[in-house]
Amino acid sequence: MKIVIIGAGNVASHLTRAFVKAGHKVTVWNRSEASLAAIKEELSCPCTTDMGAIPRDADVYLISVTDDALESVAEMLHTFIGKCEGVVAHTAGSMPVSLLQQHFRRCGVLYPMQTFTKGKTLDYNQIPFFVEEEDDVLRKLALSVSPSVYQLNGEQRKTLHLAAVFACNFTNHCYSIAEDMLQQIDIPFAALLPLINETTQKVKAMSPVEAQTGPAVREDEIVLDQQEHLLDDRPDLQDIYIRMSESIIKYKRKKE
Amino acid sequence: MKIVIIGAGNVASHLTRAFVKAGHKVTVWNRSEASLAAIKEELSCPCTTDMGAIPRDADVYLISVTDDALESVAEMLHTFIGKCEGVVAHTAGSMPVSLLQQHFRRCGVLYPMQTFTKGKTLDYNQIPFFVEEEDDVLRKLALSVSPSVYQLNGEQRKTLHLAAVFACNFTNHCYSIAEDMLQQIDIPFAALLPLINETTQKVKAMSPVEAQTGPAVREDEIVLDQQEHLLDDRPDLQDIYIRMSESIIKYKRKKE
Repeated sequence: MKIVIIGAGNVASHLTRAFVKAGHKVTVWNRSEASLAAIKEELSCPCTTDMGAIPRDADVYLISVTDDALESVAEMLHTFIGKCEGVVAHTAGSMPVSLLQQHFRRCGVLYPMQTFTKGKTLDYNQIPFFVEEEDDVLRKLALSVSPSVYQLNGEQRKTLHLAAVFACNFTNHCYSIAEDMLQQIDIPFAALLPLINETTQKVKAMSPVEAQTGPAVREDEIVLDQQEHLLDDRPDLQDIYIRMSESIIKYKRKKE
Repeated sequence: MKIVIIGAGNVASHLTRAFVKAGHKVTVWNRSEASLAAIKEELSCPCTTDMGAIPRDADVYLISVTDDALESVAEMLHTFIGKCEGVVAHTAGSMPVSLLQQHFRRCGVLYPMQTFTKGKTLDYNQIPFFVEEEDDVLRKLALSVSPSVYQLNGEQRKTLHLAAVFACNFTNHCYSIAEDMLQQIDIPFAALLPLINETTQKVKAMSPVEAQTGPAVREDEIVLDQQEHLLDDRPDLQDIYIRMSESIIKYKRKKE
């Protein structure tokens, strides 16, 4: 397919790499030259900062910019390419497709659910793509780089995004809190890595509700009470401790 | 060393396997025959349900039972072996050494920080051991099966245990909540595994505070507000969402 990527941030550059490797003809536009240079050097695909130079006959225009910039970039793109024939899609998990529908005829969303780190190569086979569209163009594009492609509408995608916030952002914050506590007793965060690793391994084989361990799921009131009081001088963390423990007990009882 | 393991649960059987493989002479006692049979068959070390048959000349007696049972088992062991020469230790992260000191002369704690699953083999090289003792016996024993051995007193161990609850039990519960949400939109939990995996991989290379992503750390009020309202009918999860997001912002600002 002929694809135009709008943006050169983390998600944009990872997708550009994946699409180029899958044999698609990719052109990249970005506001500034700086981020384009690395993409041009690595993938030698056409890169431009001039929206006027964007091909008008692409199959897919993929806008991959920050949520804040999405609306204005879509508007600007419309000024240049008009009501084009291609599908115009964005990659933002929590933004509606309607943002594009005011400007373009064929619209969609192509949301790759992964936490992208600049410079860190990813195995695209391992990334699920969530697609919203009226045609079947984005699904085919996603299938060309990943076997895991799901169709979700905007409301469903919001729930998916929230699930990802719990599974990724909040777990990472639990690690931050743990690191904070370990610093108090001079133990390196690395000492927790085997435990963290095993916790992750377990949910590959069983449901997390089944895999739950610890004082809360055992309803071990003595330890729960002791740990709650350890956080007397950290009321914000104490609150999280209490509510997470209550929620663990609730989930367990629901399962029984 | 000559070691007696008291108990045949998850932690006890994993430690028995590790110590036998490291060349120690291990005897296992357990209240019931059932759990002993598997250990006897796999490791062919002496196993008994008779406390009277426990050797009196062991270097280490390791009590690895549930927190609730610890006190009564220690008392019972004292009835049989008296004030023995060996070190009597327990493996419970959140229990004090004082529980043993009322019965025995040389006491300690040997806490292996890992989430043990029955029947799942573990790489002991990957398990950090936390030791409390007056001698140097437990540290040497731990070093015979793992390179990561740290000395911590009871107060420090409480903080460590709390850190582990956040990094392991609470992250797992975040997975449970995510699974719950995905069920609402008919997406399998497996779709989250690449994201979960990458989140874990990242903290091997950088501090979790540095690795934090998502709407909270970006202080993206639009998404935060939208996601909070998605949980209007789940007030317990909404509370967790709000408090975790606030805490992420707090940690970020502290870092800056």
